[in-house]
Amino acid sequence: MKEEAAQLLLYCPDKQGILAEVTDFITVNKGNIIYLDQYVDHAENVFFMRISWDLDGFLIPKEKIEDYFNTLYAQKYQMTFRLYFSGTKPKMAIFVSKMSHCLYDMLARYTAGEWNVEIPLIISNHPELEHIGRRFDIPFYVFPINKENKEEQERAEMELLAKHQVNFIVLARYMQIISERMIEAFPNRIINIHHSFLPAFIGAKPYHAAFERGVKIIGATSHYVTTELDAGPIIEQEIVRITHKDTIADLVNKGKDLEKIVLSRAVQKHIERKVLVYKNKTVIFN
Amino acid sequence: MKEEAAQLLLYCPDKQGILAEVTDFITVNKGNIIYLDQYVDHAENVFFMRISWDLDGFLIPKEKIEDYFNTLYAQKYQMTFRLYFSGTKPKMAIFVSKMSHCLYDMLARYTAGEWNVEIPLIISNHPELEHIGRRFDIPFYVFPINKENKEEQERAEMELLAKHQVNFIVLARYMQIISERMIEAFPNRIINIHHSFLPAFIGAKPYHAAFERGVKIIGATSHYVTTELDAGPIIEQEIVRITHKDTIADLVNKGKDLEKIVLSRAVQKHIERKVLVYKNKTVIFN
Amino acid sequence: MKEEAAQLLLYCPDKQGILAEVTDFITVNKGNIIYLDQYVDHAENVFFMRISWDLDGFLIPKEKIEDYFNTLYAQKYQMTFRLYFSGTKPKMAIFVSKMSHCLYDMLARYTAGEWNVEIPLIISNHPELEHIGRRFDIPFYVFPINKENKEEQERAEMELLAKHQVNFIVLARYMQIISERMIEAFPNRIINIHHSFLPAFIGAKPYHAAFERGVKIIGATSHYVTTELDAGPIIEQEIVRITHKDTIADLVNKGKDLEKIVLSRAVQKHIERKVLVYKNKTVIFN
Amino acid sequence: MKEEAAQLLLYCPDKQGILAEVTDFITVNKGNIIYLDQYVDHAENVFFMRISWDLDGFLIPKEKIEDYFNTLYAQKYQMTFRLYFSGTKPKMAIFVSKMSHCLYDMLARYTAGEWNVEIPLIISNHPELEHIGRRFDIPFYVFPINKENKEEQERAEMELLAKHQVNFIVLARYMQIISERMIEAFPNRIINIHHSFLPAFIGAKPYHAAFERGVKIIGATSHYVTTELDAGPIIEQEIVRITHKDTIADLVNKGKDLEKIVLSRAVQKHIERKVLVYKNKTVIFN
Repeated sequence: MKEEAAQLLLYCPDKQGILAEVTDFITVNKGNIIYLDQYVDHAENVFFMRISWDLDGFLIPKEKIEDYFNTLYAQKYQMTFRLYFSGTKPKMAIFVSKMSHCLYDMLARYTAGEWNVEIPLIISNHPELEHIGRRFDIPFYVFPINKENKEEQERAEMELLAKHQVNFIVLARYMQIISERMIEAFPNRIINIHHSFLPAFIGAKPYHAAFERGVKIIGATSHYVTTELDAGPIIEQEIVRITHKDTIADLVNKGKDLEKIVLSRAVQKHIERKVLVYKNKTVIFN
Repeated sequence: MKEEAAQLLLYCPDKQGILAEVTDFITVNKGNIIYLDQYVDHAENVFFMRISWDLDGFLIPKEKIEDYFNTLYAQKYQMTFRLYFSGTKPKMAIFVSKMSHCLYDMLARYTAGEWNVEIPLIISNHPELEHIGRRFDIPFYVFPINKENKEEQERAEMELLAKHQVNFIVLARYMQIISERMIEAFPNRIINIHHSFLPAFIGAKPYHAAFERGVKIIGATSHYVTTELDAGPIIEQEIVRITHKDTIADLVNKGKDLEKIVLSRAVQKHIERKVLVYKNKTVIFN
Repeated sequence: MKEEAAQLLLYCPDKQGILAEVTDFITVNKGNIIYLDQYVDHAENVFFMRISWDLDGFLIPKEKIEDYFNTLYAQKYQMTFRLYFSGTKPKMAIFVSKMSHCLYDMLARYTAGEWNVEIPLIISNHPELEHIGRRFDIPFYVFPINKENKEEQERAEMELLAKHQVNFIVLARYMQIISERMIEAFPNRIINIHHSFLPAFIGAKPYHAAFERGVKIIGATSHYVTTELDAGPIIEQEIVRITHKDTIADLVNKGKDLEKIVLSRAVQKHIERKVLVYKNKTVIFN
Repeated sequence: MKEEAAQLLLYCPDKQGILAEVTDFITVNKGNIIYLDQYVDHAENVFFMRISWDLDGFLIPKEKIEDYFNTLYAQKYQMTFRLYFSGTKPKMAIFVSKMSHCLYDMLARYTAGEWNVEIPLIISNHPELEHIGRRFDIPFYVFPINKENKEEQERAEMELLAKHQVNFIVLARYMQIISERMIEAFPNRIINIHHSFLPAFIGAKPYHAAFERGVKIIGATSHYVTTELDAGPIIEQEIVRITHKDTIADLVNKGKDLEKIVLSRAVQKHIERKVLVYKNKTVIFN
């Protein structure tokens, strides 16, 4: 069996010795470092780090690591940090509307065991993709949303998410604006896929806009959702070339492949706890 | 010696038989077709075509082809068309400011004989790159521009362009807005390079804006200049991936390679007469 | 309802007038051309064409078009041609082993109605992916293969393919060499995905070989299967950048996304009848 | 004036504490670390590091750093290391034959002051590009090479390189095999550009081979020259898509842009001392 590992992500004002102290903390306590990636933003003078070590033989009990680390280092260095364990699978909810390509792509990875995640439920504002939930044995809940019932339906969704202890949400071409309340309940924990290379073509119908503008490249962008539309921290982007021969339908078709790959890459990085958000930008560790 | 060829570009409302008639016109008059690319925009119902044939043995004298074609077909089919000859090199002026990478890239191709073009002059609003004109034996004119003298200086530039019979202008990171008057004198014949994947980051300092936004991809766009800033028909775009580790200086550095390649590709397509503009978009023939 | 269209693909020695005659044939018989793409290989002097027209109102009965076209043009111009109808869905069999990513990707497109194809069966030499057949309601047949039973098992497979009137086969990471007999029964109708940018890393374990060689880019290639291993006509290729930090497991992981996208793009082009094979190369129409 | 920095590259068997000790060594001696990138190859159990610090105020005199570091750490940890100073420009010789695109691209960067390097001379086996040396005021030496005089001419070249204290050589489409003797005199210090995505199409005429094979992607590869042809450590690769419409001439034309960009990227990484070679592979630091 693969042993459990601790995963620590942090950032703080850059100072000499942080790296040495943190690695020391782990080594002295008999932890075997299996991963270390660090980076200094010299313009902002911020130190970023992701470090992971085997818990087997580690002298500090798992449930006390956070406390110790906080007391010993986090306060001293003004660190913002998060501690995870590889044995604790995050719980992810998928929100969809009528398009299936992103959903299928994620469920294929999930079912094949590629992702260290649990998907307790799928939520949709339409019933069209219910059959996919059945195919993959995942509960599928339909919450039709209109102007009148939006607040009420979102409240019901949030109760369901809480009941399932959902850690983060993936909007897999979910064609609804998420309300501020839900966004604030999941800060940097709602991942969206937008079908353009943001910040080009913010908002609705980006393929139509791209066609109108006559671009030679289209793209897709996955980002964390913030209260400003399509303006949250970008996790991943990818593009594909088009020509004057491509119709809007061709753009939609080519774009689907981009969307699902870009979204799945972003979700994978999130699941692996390799994303740090700082000032509306992401640091993506290797 | 390579024989001279005629190059015909046209578009018109799509109707059955256009292709057959045009190829017939050439074949019946003993022209050997060496290139044909056509395309129908079914949404707009417009037929686009580029056709090229050897003039050797062609029954219609070179100087009368335009007249004949106009009388026989263009009026009948409401064609917009342009006729070129491979033996007539277009004359291209390059406008620069202080950055040399695009200029060098084009002059290297020109000097190596890769482009069927003449470059009678380089114009700049700064003297910094004068030495490059000297290195490549191309007259280099400096027209310092400020708010007061802009109109006057542009008038002098236009006289110089007229004197040299310049057909089209390439703005190789020329850091000045071109006035409407000059744009209208060269419709779809001023090629600009913008250092972003338009329509993202229109206007000044796009690398700074890209850095601020935290994008994972930067790009460059070459387009024909219209009176609306950075909104003209796009000829070519290209991108490169960046990461959170890239500073603005890194973006500028990586972007330079994009800019020069994208601009040179666009200029080459223009020189080869393989670009048609229709409704603020380009059709790029193979 | 969408009307049925005829789809004609052909190649022949290039001569003046072919294009005009073929378009004339359709127009004179009241066919409305909805697609035309042609291309001349000047080095080989071969004319390639794909043309499609609405059958509604076409004067020649559907079942006689092939005969007429053959008599009138194909013999005269020594054409090799194939005629298809959009209303006739090709039947496609998928062969798999233990990896599911390509299979899921194709079934997702199929189930979403993106592909004009029927998938009557999946064949595997292992039982691992049987559950996917069940999820998508597609019969899944297991033919375990070893040195002793290979000939016999392939014969049984071929009977099954014949019974289901399968037109073409997709090897979706099927880890068995197909015998000559089966290849010859499906000439240019078996599509394989190879997990390298061919011709680099032919044969087994290309990701290991790529890792050993220290390349900075990995790729995937879909091609028609010929009797020479990994040497058939290439339909599509794609690549992704890697770094020294990527382990073999990372390569396998990144490669999976390439493989499924490249294979699905190739299959789609094949389903749309947009691929012509000539001298071990493909002409891919728009 | 920009202050001078020390640049240390090293690798050694991975052990706990190396990172801490090295950063300590610098910090304790009042060096300000301005760059640190490290990486552990867990499969090989090798630790790689690049670290850079300001020399201003550093307690150890510049000329003694290497000695101290060697005594204190390199022996203890069995390190292979190289120490550079930003103030010491490496000297680079360019070898060319008849194609100018890579040469122009490098000289443009050099002349624009983008590269911290000196180019004391260009060597060619043909006189065709002599004019470029003149344009850029760089001595250009012609050593025509044939089977009979090869050894003698290379000896003369090596004397010239020695006289100019050349540190590394760039083969900018130099169409001659370098002899073992010269390769061994410049281990991992001769950078070549090969016009294919290696290991595909090793040897002569790769574009012709790519055309014959019918690939959909062509590439270029820069690598250090070893005695095995086209098999040295790869520094950088890039690709571009082609179609069936591209002739060999098109491939050559598109390939030129790849070649020059890939070669210049590799040379830049080498100049910045960001490349480490380990077991025929490169570690490329950010």
